[in-house]
Amino acid sequence: MAPRGALTPLFEPRAIAVYGASSDPTKIGGRPLNFLKSSGFDGPLYPINPKAAQIQGLPSFATVGAVPGPVDLAIVAVPAPGVLAALEDCAAKGVGGAVVLSSGFAEVGGAGVEWQARITALARRTGMRVVGPNCMGLINVRRRLLGTFTPSAAGFGLMPGRISLVSQSGAFGGYCLSLVRQRGLGLNLWITTGNQCDVDVADCIDHFARDEGTQVIAVYLEAATDKHRLVDALALARERGKRVVVMKVGRSEAGAQAAASHTASLAGADQVYEGLFRQYGVWRARSIDELFDVAYACSVPVPAPLGRRVGLLTVSGGVGALMADVAGDCALDVAPMPDDAQRRLKELVPFCGPRNPVDMTAQLVNDLTLFGRNFQIMLEDGGYDVVVAFLSSVGQVMDLSRSLLEQLQAVLARFPDRTVVFSSLATPEVRQMYEAAGVLLFDEPTRAVRAASALVHFAEQARRAARQDPPPPLPTGAVPPPARAVNEVDAKAILASAGIPVVAERVAADGDAATREAAALGYPVVLKIASADIAHKSEIGGVIVGLRDESQVRDAYRTLMQRAADRAPLARVDGVVVARMAEPGVETILGVVRDPVFGPVVMFGLGGIFVEAFQDVVFRVAPFGVTEAQAMVAEVKGRVLLRGVRGQPPADEDALVRAIAALSVYAAAHAEAIDSIDINPLLVLPRGRGVLALDALIVPTDAA
Amino acid sequence: MAPRGALTPLFEPRAIAVYGASSDPTKIGGRPLNFLKSSGFDGPLYPINPKAAQIQGLPSFATVGAVPGPVDLAIVAVPAPGVLAALEDCAAKGVGGAVVLSSGFAEVGGAGVEWQARITALARRTGMRVVGPNCMGLINVRRRLLGTFTPSAAGFGLMPGRISLVSQSGAFGGYCLSLVRQRGLGLNLWITTGNQCDVDVADCIDHFARDEGTQVIAVYLEAATDKHRLVDALALARERGKRVVVMKVGRSEAGAQAAASHTASLAGADQVYEGLFRQYGVWRARSIDELFDVAYACSVPVPAPLGRRVGLLTVSGGVGALMADVAGDCALDVAPMPDDAQRRLKELVPFCGPRNPVDMTAQLVNDLTLFGRNFQIMLEDGGYDVVVAFLSSVGQVMDLSRSLLEQLQAVLARFPDRTVVFSSLATPEVRQMYEAAGVLLFDEPTRAVRAASALVHFAEQARRAARQDPPPPLPTGAVPPPARAVNEVDAKAILASAGIPVVAERVAADGDAATREAAALGYPVVLKIASADIAHKSEIGGVIVGLRDESQVRDAYRTLMQRAADRAPLARVDGVVVARMAEPGVETILGVVRDPVFGPVVMFGLGGIFVEAFQDVVFRVAPFGVTEAQAMVAEVKGRVLLRGVRGQPPADEDALVRAIAALSVYAAAHAEAIDSIDINPLLVLPRGRGVLALDALIVPTDAA
Repeated sequence: MAPRGALTPLFEPRAIAVYGASSDPTKIGGRPLNFLKSSGFDGPLYPINPKAAQIQGLPSFATVGAVPGPVDLAIVAVPAPGVLAALEDCAAKGVGGAVVLSSGFAEVGGAGVEWQARITALARRTGMRVVGPNCMGLINVRRRLLGTFTPSAAGFGLMPGRISLVSQSGAFGGYCLSLVRQRGLGLNLWITTGNQCDVDVADCIDHFARDEGTQVIAVYLEAATDKHRLVDALALARERGKRVVVMKVGRSEAGAQAAASHTASLAGADQVYEGLFRQYGVWRARSIDELFDVAYACSVPVPAPLGRRVGLLTVSGGVGALMADVAGDCALDVAPMPDDAQRRLKELVPFCGPRNPVDMTAQLVNDLTLFGRNFQIMLEDGGYDVVVAFLSSVGQVMDLSRSLLEQLQAVLARFPDRTVVFSSLATPEVRQMYEAAGVLLFDEPTRAVRAASALVHFAEQARRAARQDPPPPLPTGAVPPPARAVNEVDAKAILASAGIPVVAERVAADGDAATREAAALGYPVVLKIASADIAHKSEIGGVIVGLRDESQVRDAYRTLMQRAADRAPLARVDGVVVARMAEPGVETILGVVRDPVFGPVVMFGLGGIFVEAFQDVVFRVAPFGVTEAQAMVAEVKGRVLLRGVRGQPPADEDALVRAIAALSVYAAAHAEAIDSIDINPLLVLPRGRGVLALDALIVPTDAA
Repeated sequence: MAPRGALTPLFEPRAIAVYGASSDPTKIGGRPLNFLKSSGFDGPLYPINPKAAQIQGLPSFATVGAVPGPVDLAIVAVPAPGVLAALEDCAAKGVGGAVVLSSGFAEVGGAGVEWQARITALARRTGMRVVGPNCMGLINVRRRLLGTFTPSAAGFGLMPGRISLVSQSGAFGGYCLSLVRQRGLGLNLWITTGNQCDVDVADCIDHFARDEGTQVIAVYLEAATDKHRLVDALALARERGKRVVVMKVGRSEAGAQAAASHTASLAGADQVYEGLFRQYGVWRARSIDELFDVAYACSVPVPAPLGRRVGLLTVSGGVGALMADVAGDCALDVAPMPDDAQRRLKELVPFCGPRNPVDMTAQLVNDLTLFGRNFQIMLEDGGYDVVVAFLSSVGQVMDLSRSLLEQLQAVLARFPDRTVVFSSLATPEVRQMYEAAGVLLFDEPTRAVRAASALVHFAEQARRAARQDPPPPLPTGAVPPPARAVNEVDAKAILASAGIPVVAERVAADGDAATREAAALGYPVVLKIASADIAHKSEIGGVIVGLRDESQVRDAYRTLMQRAADRAPLARVDGVVVARMAEPGVETILGVVRDPVFGPVVMFGLGGIFVEAFQDVVFRVAPFGVTEAQAMVAEVKGRVLLRGVRGQPPADEDALVRAIAALSVYAAAHAEAIDSIDINPLLVLPRGRGVLALDALIVPTDAA
């Protein structure tokens, strides 16, 4: 089997053959040829159709084998039953890549499933890369290559640019194409992957990450097919400084069901994707507007913001306050101007708002140079990393806009590391002038602020990636997961070997032993039923806390044995667990779940009611280091509890993140053997005192 | 003092005088006259300028008194020091309303503050309504009345429509005007209120609510000036079926600071506004896009949705899933199609997605009638209240769009009570055709879904208003608030008289009395220090729970007296409170705070860390009835706890909402006397067992 080859033949072909080319330019087989001809693709085009000598004015060939010169890309639009034969011809000819537009494969079931499987096998055997079937094809704007039949491509009308887009859905991809044209965005490569028999979204991200003409990778994803290729592609994109913006549907239950039934694939839990995106610095868009706002923001070469400090410059105090609200939503730092700088601003316009937002007021109309002077003071004295400037509708007047831009550039020449985002209603000409000068321009001020926050996000992610620590080593004495269910004491012993601190405890087979162990551990103690068969002991009253002496321990032992006999008569009971009562701390939950695509995934959240009532948990794909564990802890809404509320001391977050990272390493090392791990609670003690797993459950894969 | 008159002379003048009219159409005094002339206002225009015989080709008058005919509206653009004299002339002439465009008043301080106060006094004395000063003026599109100097009004270019807009900020108002024109929205009235020396935002909402041509009231608000007029105006708008969409800045700390420094007014807590908006069914927009999306959705006469069930019809499974996600965010019910209807849909397109979203797939291209047939099945069998249909970019082709619209109308003729929102990229002509037919059209599918949810919101609010109960009567024996701080027992006795159940308890002056009261109440009991001077007893260890017999009560009494002496030596101590231990329940917090604008405001939240860690509290302006209290409880995120988690029984929400409404009535009845009330905790017992105030604090205004 050949290794998976690059996608270069698909996007950069010297020559293209169109299988099933039709003389009717409105048919699926006629449209791509028509598009390629009229857009002016710069290489030879070979219609493949045995029934005609000429198609759309070009000499036609019976098979691709009959074509005299080399062919890198085949566009296949023959009916489904004939696709495999066409692809075999292509492979024999040495075609590097094929796009199968035809539908009637896995999406309709029946024979289509088998046909598709054969195409996959062919692709794997020959190394020829196959896109589709049941897809809308691909585009390379620079080459004027329209390898698609989407009506959205008609008339071309696309501007070359630095955004490349991959969409699993053809209809979504087609809609985006119309939108890109309507917004006047610059596009580089565009592809829809359809049934993904060979080329999938991860392959395309990988290709875009390597492609010099691409700066922003926009993705529409329904479900990943392979953990490692997706993770590797995202990691490569980050390494190469490419920004990735993803629209991943299935956030809500209704959306997840819709996505699953649409793609007929197991999508995995949405929160796992959310964790993966955070892990690799991907921006997840929640609307199509946002997808393209962020893609646009990243496609204009502006400096990466040095930090979160944002200055807001406005001609409307009201819009200034609105921008401040949205900046707050985006966790940007709307730091005030220093007092003396506020005085200097007041000298320029006596009744301006000098704090931040800086409100130039309508005085700007009387003296346009106020803009540059205010802007300079904001960069010089305010020291903002990013400035978002709202200028109402001056962008509709070319000479005013030119003057503002010149002032802006004069100041930026002295502060080349600062980022500026403009907001104004603007004519297309003004927009182009600003973008050419490396200044982002948004109609709507809140979208400008959100775009600025996306730039801040990507800059932070790049810095975070640079200092990210590797996963810690697996402790040398780490015990492998058990082959079948074990009791909580054994589970904790295994976790302890993996580097997760656990509570001091012993198993006692009878009442006498229980009192001996209690005395050895020191009072007060807790008694729990010891049984591998009882997962949720507290639900059957299997835990008794706060035992202060020998007689209480003896009583508790008898009570627990009676409850086990009454309420779980079939469970094998090993006696009781005697554990030292833990000092007060914050209860958290730490666990591992096995995702069908991503394998072991670590889950963390605050314990008790927080998980149940608020679903306040975060996920990460294992393994990862302490930095990533810190990010997880920072994302949990209930984190304030770890910081210490109601006079409580702050909790030991250092020990917590070490435990989270250690669990991720253990889970990844034994990915095949673990179905789930549940440490509940993991008690986080006050700072400097560590964490303690009080209860734990390991479910091996056999037992699942 | 004359009562405040209607704003009719301002918006519907027979004739207009322009004070300070200039021959230079680019100056503030020249621009309104120029605009009014060139837009074609349908009544006489009188420039007022003693220095010229003619201004911009019209005969000029020395004062408005010299004008021969009646004048209803004066636009005043003279420098600040001359404004008062001009307004006095106007009042003498019997002018009904004046718009003061001039700046240099309260916003700059100094003499301007006094000048503005005199204008207010004049307006109050004469009944002449005054807009501004320091504002951008007003517009009546139907009358082609451009009483403004904003450059955004140049060239008119406004389409008459059913949206009226009031903006406290002139620059914001001007920007909106440009945006309205760019989006091709229909506008009716537009006004900016500036310094609000007389006419404020509430007056304008009131006027719009009474105005027949207005269907949607769009508001930009920085700070309300008067509770009752704002509340009355919002109530009137609701009563008249007008939709109110508000942009209120100051959600975040930075935004609130910016808004406060910009308007130099005390804005009140943002959460109070949030509560008020919810109370009166106002939609609060978070971006300017959203403000106009919702305003647009309400301006097209579509049926009010009967419920929350939304059907999603799409040509892209991916966009369908995306719409389902956003519908989930908006708490719409994406209910699946019935099974047999799914079968019928499958007959139309074998590989469609039939569940909901209903995915017609690209098959629609081959058979356009699929649209009407799918749509009919969704209304007939799915029974959806609203259908959002995504059709990619068919709106760019007129004949396809016409065919779809005809199909739509044929189905809607049979289901005239259903709402439909279309999403497609569209030409302006197609857009106009759809809107004329009462079909909303959005470019972006997630914005279409959000707009649909706004329509659902307004329909629900209208139904809620119709069945809303009045505030309950104040109990006849209700004791007025104390003149000075009282201990918790007295505070609870007062609240009990107001209809709020409190825990059974007695004050005991010594240890013997404590044991007697404990025996009378029944063990186990709680002992607490009784003192009006110790607000937070538990912080000094002033509460001991779980006392089971006489000796424990005696010990506890001694301990508490010692702690009081040690830790609060200056407090007057009345002995101890003996209370029966309450059975387990859910701890909530119920309180009253006095807002500088809105007076007594009721606060409710889940108790303990939920308030502290999550700020999970909601507010309402007092007084209100049980329905409104139910809405409050429904809004709290931690409400799941009241529903019963972890095997707990559901809590007595009926008793809870009665207590909340009762407190709101008591607070409103004694608005001037109460600074704050804090019931913490208000324990909500299992269903049927009521609520109990366990601790309470009343701070009278004198003590504040």
